[in-house]
Amino acid sequence: MRVPVVRNILEVNDRIANEHRALFKKNNLLVLNLMSSPGAGKTTLLENTIGHLKEKLSIGVIEGDIQASVDAERIIGAGAAAVQINTGGACHLDANMIKEALPAIDIEKMDLLFIENVGNLVCPAEFDLGEDYKVMILSVTEGDDKSEKYPLMFHEASVLLINKIDLLPYVDCNMNKIRETVLKINPHIKIFEISCQTKEGLDTWFQWISDHIKR
Amino acid sequence: MRVPVVRNILEVNDRIANEHRALFKKNNLLVLNLMSSPGAGKTTLLENTIGHLKEKLSIGVIEGDIQASVDAERIIGAGAAAVQINTGGACHLDANMIKEALPAIDIEKMDLLFIENVGNLVCPAEFDLGEDYKVMILSVTEGDDKSEKYPLMFHEASVLLINKIDLLPYVDCNMNKIRETVLKINPHIKIFEISCQTKEGLDTWFQWISDHIKR
Repeated sequence: MRVPVVRNILEVNDRIANEHRALFKKNNLLVLNLMSSPGAGKTTLLENTIGHLKEKLSIGVIEGDIQASVDAERIIGAGAAAVQINTGGACHLDANMIKEALPAIDIEKMDLLFIENVGNLVCPAEFDLGEDYKVMILSVTEGDDKSEKYPLMFHEASVLLINKIDLLPYVDCNMNKIRETVLKINPHIKIFEISCQTKEGLDTWFQWISDHIKR
Repeated sequence: MRVPVVRNILEVNDRIANEHRALFKKNNLLVLNLMSSPGAGKTTLLENTIGHLKEKLSIGVIEGDIQASVDAERIIGAGAAAVQINTGGACHLDANMIKEALPAIDIEKMDLLFIENVGNLVCPAEFDLGEDYKVMILSVTEGDDKSEKYPLMFHEASVLLINKIDLLPYVDCNMNKIRETVLKINPHIKIFEISCQTKEGLDTWFQWISDHIKR
């Protein structure tokens, strides 16, 4: 009984996501759907990215959380427009939630919109939100076996940011193993090694964004 | 349309979970449902726990993963009986999956059964598996704001293990804030601070288990 219901939800989701995609394209807006485990560093990455790019680009963030608005407050503090979605229990964002959030931000003058998904390595990967690219963060403290156990998100992402590399001396994590297993699942994924703490590697990520801005 | 379907699934789940609970009680089996984000250290905790208690207790593990069996192999290597459930996409275990797994392990002679849930801070907390206690792991690398953003699991857990405390000097994580915010959600939760790397604090956790064994 469950499978047909899920399929129906995904069909409705995809139709709404396609409407978003058309709207984003019309506005020359680059939209990135940011996904990771809880605590991998999504909001800290956004703070760093906004801090670096806000002089050149107009940036907005749709924040997805089960409850609370601490992340949206951090984003506004960093200097971007933000709207908070509280999913009220749901473990992922879907296209209809984005539809509810869009009127609250002015995308007409915007260059870059981040959608920070709920911290979850599973379900967010199943829902198209109309974004241009799915961007995934994995922190080295999570270990080097995550792509074997949660393959879908690694398969769907266009970019993988491996974060917290400043902690590599203290944890049991083989970077070569991450690269090899991820590239087996997704040979076209772009991998950046970064630390939001020391700022190492962030320049290559900022450059990737600049290269993909549409106007 | 979605809510009634979910409610129906949860009702069926609870009926099956109650059957498990009766079976576990009849066998004087302590059953712990272990939940956390991906990479917080569930399997490493189990390896340590099995290593310490296997001379005194007969231990089994039901391993839940979306795919792969690397965790079950680690458990068998540590000296316990293990059965692997592959959820094939589902982001949590449910009582029916446990029903499928139980015939594969001999619980009649067993003192302690761990159910290692899928790495996810959201949905596993919604599904009763018939366990005695929900035990949650939070690693300090995930930050000190998780209970505000993912309150349900903190509310449902009887025990919280705060893991990776050896990394506290290198991360921005306030232990007092974790304790205060968690106790506000769940005043009865038992909190242990541990490191599976240095073994610090593990003795108190082993003692908690010994105190709750039923025979």
